[in-house]
Amino acid sequence: MIGLFDSGVGGLTIVRELLKKYPDVSFVYLGDTARYPYGNKSKETVEKYAVEDARFVINKGAKLVIIACNTVSSLAMDKLRATFPEVSFLGVIEPAVRLAVDHSKTSVGITGTRATVGSGIYEQILKNLNPKIKVYQKACPLFVPLVEEGLIDDQVTKIMIRRYLTPLRQKNVKSLILGCTHYPFLQPLIERFMGKKVKIINSAEAVIDKAFELYPNLFTTTVDRKQEILFTDTSTHLDALIAKWLKVNIKVKKVVL
Amino acid sequence: MIGLFDSGVGGLTIVRELLKKYPDVSFVYLGDTARYPYGNKSKETVEKYAVEDARFVINKGAKLVIIACNTVSSLAMDKLRATFPEVSFLGVIEPAVRLAVDHSKTSVGITGTRATVGSGIYEQILKNLNPKIKVYQKACPLFVPLVEEGLIDDQVTKIMIRRYLTPLRQKNVKSLILGCTHYPFLQPLIERFMGKKVKIINSAEAVIDKAFELYPNLFTTTVDRKQEILFTDTSTHLDALIAKWLKVNIKVKKVVL
Repeated sequence: MIGLFDSGVGGLTIVRELLKKYPDVSFVYLGDTARYPYGNKSKETVEKYAVEDARFVINKGAKLVIIACNTVSSLAMDKLRATFPEVSFLGVIEPAVRLAVDHSKTSVGITGTRATVGSGIYEQILKNLNPKIKVYQKACPLFVPLVEEGLIDDQVTKIMIRRYLTPLRQKNVKSLILGCTHYPFLQPLIERFMGKKVKIINSAEAVIDKAFELYPNLFTTTVDRKQEILFTDTSTHLDALIAKWLKVNIKVKKVVL
Repeated sequence: MIGLFDSGVGGLTIVRELLKKYPDVSFVYLGDTARYPYGNKSKETVEKYAVEDARFVINKGAKLVIIACNTVSSLAMDKLRATFPEVSFLGVIEPAVRLAVDHSKTSVGITGTRATVGSGIYEQILKNLNPKIKVYQKACPLFVPLVEEGLIDDQVTKIMIRRYLTPLRQKNVKSLILGCTHYPFLQPLIERFMGKKVKIINSAEAVIDKAFELYPNLFTTTVDRKQEILFTDTSTHLDALIAKWLKVNIKVKKVVL
């Protein structure tokens, strides 16, 4: 079984990608909506929450845990691997970075929450893979609330895309990593703004492809298939968002960590 | 000593109001930034967090606890009073509602987070005081992230004010309650949009005036004055926001509940 967790609903873009390619896979998704969002919290706090989230999906039977959250992937991978040495962890960052490096030899743009961008993790991994590559980062803190308000194709969202991404466009980046799980919803608008020459890298797609490459046996259909989506807090707004985003018939349940 | 708590930084508009009028008052403020925001969380979760926050400021010596958070004031007052019967609690809602009812005999507008507006608490208290009054509510979920991004006088903020508040303006409300502690930062823009005939009611101001009216002895200057601002999580962005908002020399510390 595959485990996935996120601070909230954003990681569902990864579940969506997973189900699009492997509709019969067994998985459990945990969204820590009771303590959402992690994006502006400290490393110490994010680590603590990540360990609690991971323990929950591991206890459910996960052998591979996909960290469906950029903030946790930026700040808590070492802590998770040290705490649960018997489990495989796959973050959302490295698969996207590898795609970017394969595609762009000169310059890459990175977008994300303030915490993700501030951690410098994307730049560090990019530079490890190709020390000559130029990296331009931009925190886009309003993208998450805009997506969660459903303002996917909206005047205000367009203004904020222009404001946040103009510096990256001016640098002529060759590819642009959407370093936050919410951002794939804005991909069409971002592509239009950045132009056809810029490859937009959706980290949800990248991580699922990488997981299948590394652990293909976890993607096979079994008789006792289990698919669970769990949250630490639920609300009517959340139910509506999930129905709109995921378009699958999986009952959402509330759990206590 | 006066205790105040909020889910995050928004309640600092109440501290600002408190210090403006009573610079030598003893107080402790707790912002639960590690679990911020409460606005989209369930009643059960908000109650649990509120009890933990209140216990903390009570253990610090607070005799009066000002709930510097609309979500907690909407959802958890009964729970708090039942859990700590020896302490006085004052929420941000009722003082603002009383001002509105005193000013406007026909119709009142209410703005707030989705959770506050969804709770219906403002309407309920308004109707208790004046069953004939017409109440028009509007959740403005993007106002908080806009304020926290410092977009106080910005094109995007103006668009969202127009979008959210046009229905209330069309109803010709006589007063408009800013039912979220972040919103006083948008008061000048909101006043301009709503026009001079609409009284804008700032709940931070209302609650401090009410607290002084009810418990004047807590506002006297003592030799052993204590002023503390504490958060369950801190970050550089938070420090910058507080310095910008509060303009006082109080050291901010991190605590664990």
